[in-house]
Amino acid sequence: MDSEFSLIARLRRALPSAADPRLLVGIGDDAAVWRDGGYTVATTDTMVEGVHFLRDAVPACDVGWKALAANISDIAAMGATPAFALVTLCLPPDTDDSWPDGLYAGIRACAEAYGVTVAGGDIVSSPTLTITIALAGAPTLDASGEPLLLRRDAARAGDVVAVSGPLGGSAGGLRVLRSRGASSDAARLLVARHMRPRPRVDVGAAAVRAGVRCAIDISDGLLQDLGHICEASGAGADLRLDDVPIDPALSALYPDDARTLAATGGEDYELVVVAQRDAIERVSAALAAPLEVVGVMTSAAEHRVRALDSGGREVRFERGGWDHLSRAWLAT
Amino acid sequence: MDSEFSLIARLRRALPSAADPRLLVGIGDDAAVWRDGGYTVATTDTMVEGVHFLRDAVPACDVGWKALAANISDIAAMGATPAFALVTLCLPPDTDDSWPDGLYAGIRACAEAYGVTVAGGDIVSSPTLTITIALAGAPTLDASGEPLLLRRDAARAGDVVAVSGPLGGSAGGLRVLRSRGASSDAARLLVARHMRPRPRVDVGAAAVRAGVRCAIDISDGLLQDLGHICEASGAGADLRLDDVPIDPALSALYPDDARTLAATGGEDYELVVVAQRDAIERVSAALAAPLEVVGVMTSAAEHRVRALDSGGREVRFERGGWDHLSRAWLAT
Repeated sequence: MDSEFSLIARLRRALPSAADPRLLVGIGDDAAVWRDGGYTVATTDTMVEGVHFLRDAVPACDVGWKALAANISDIAAMGATPAFALVTLCLPPDTDDSWPDGLYAGIRACAEAYGVTVAGGDIVSSPTLTITIALAGAPTLDASGEPLLLRRDAARAGDVVAVSGPLGGSAGGLRVLRSRGASSDAARLLVARHMRPRPRVDVGAAAVRAGVRCAIDISDGLLQDLGHICEASGAGADLRLDDVPIDPALSALYPDDARTLAATGGEDYELVVVAQRDAIERVSAALAAPLEVVGVMTSAAEHRVRALDSGGREVRFERGGWDHLSRAWLAT
Repeated sequence: MDSEFSLIARLRRALPSAADPRLLVGIGDDAAVWRDGGYTVATTDTMVEGVHFLRDAVPACDVGWKALAANISDIAAMGATPAFALVTLCLPPDTDDSWPDGLYAGIRACAEAYGVTVAGGDIVSSPTLTITIALAGAPTLDASGEPLLLRRDAARAGDVVAVSGPLGGSAGGLRVLRSRGASSDAARLLVARHMRPRPRVDVGAAAVRAGVRCAIDISDGLLQDLGHICEASGAGADLRLDDVPIDPALSALYPDDARTLAATGGEDYELVVVAQRDAIERVSAALAAPLEVVGVMTSAAEHRVRALDSGGREVRFERGGWDHLSRAWLAT
């Protein structure tokens, strides 16, 4: 079987959508955008037991929170506001009722925190416990009612690359869960980063209002997600590893691997924001904590990210990030 | 574990949506309806291998067609027009590439037949092959721009119950697939009814324009789906079994069970339309084939469907329809 990204390319070829003039953004960005009466930004994200979570390692309510939060993050990465969710639950017949009750409680908590209303869904029997959420939101509009969007393909050479917060905490939390041992405050903070991420709707909205037009959320890992921007924009990027902000709890618990996990670990759900420096500064001025500049877009012909150490030497990482098809929750 | 309908009730309690004034129709109808810039009608539907289809019994393209068609039918049952789909594929790692290729080809064929654009989706690894589609559409609007909707809760005692076409064909096709033997023309027609359903967007649109305000699509079986209308509307229904139109191929291949399958078999994706008789006649006048009147809504206190034979005696069926949690594709 092909990798996820190859399969997405096959999907794009098999399902051409460019012909629809109502579709502003189709397959390949964080979310789709279309025009109906107004404008809708929509995304969908799935969590599979044994791949994205283990039922006996995390409470159902945390799975519910994270399933919705991952979708909210995609909407945030478009500079849009989440609004309505459809929740699909694939449930093994032997599941105790307390599990869906816990799941719904977590979804509800996240929905209330982000102003999302669950409007419907589906419940089916399946051998594999799976939660799929589709989420629709509203884009930020300009004065004439046209949508202002953050896209993957809007980066240009010379733009600054910034991130919205410390990274690697979610990957650290995953490591804590796998080890099933740690119970320190740092360990608990990391697990919370992994299972209760706080998507940055505030950052996306501030960015789009400040004139930024390019962003992505960190779901696969900074290096890989910045790579998606490079590929979509036809540009390269130089990332200064020493400038990547590291989750303090990660540095405390796993000091040897913290920098690697901050650069490559997935599911932090912070945003990567790419724009001219003055726009980045305007975004920072609108936020409680400023964006952190970590690199610059280049005109490198190979359209990839170079991760550089303090001496300007390229650093190669074994693990480039998360491929949803080849990597499972416990596989690495 | 509770039944599907009990779990949906739990979901409604756990995720109260009535507080959102933008939500016109929430959990419990064929699709949700909300107001954003315009109005959106949205639904989601899942097909799980081993529960809703067998990979070696049906081509991937048929699974793709049916996965999208089931969603389109939910939009049709609201009197709305389907527009944009998000496609989520949960794929076992050992799946040959030809399978998703076939799936996408079937989704594309159905999308083109109904004017739907695939705007995005998700691909993840899973032990269980699963296709989840979320579909958004546009409601029919009145002259002042307000949505005209077909709802489950709008039936009133004295209303006529009509169906949009012959029933039982899909259940007959499922029986053909299970027997893995039949190869007659009738058998092929029934399998096509099962795997290539043609949702009735035309009927929903004609109904809503003719002033009808109540409908449901036949996904669980006529008796059960009409029961959903009774429950939502606080009414009863008397169904005249002799008037239920039966798929001719079903009568040819399974004459002994045809009437039972027409009354209880699921996934025909015709519409049940409930309205005053003059409205039903206006709908019929707008369609190539008229609606078939099969019963009447009553004020029966127990809010259930009575299936009556030609002598007016109630007929009880062993199998009341399809519960997505307790019944699997091969279980009955």
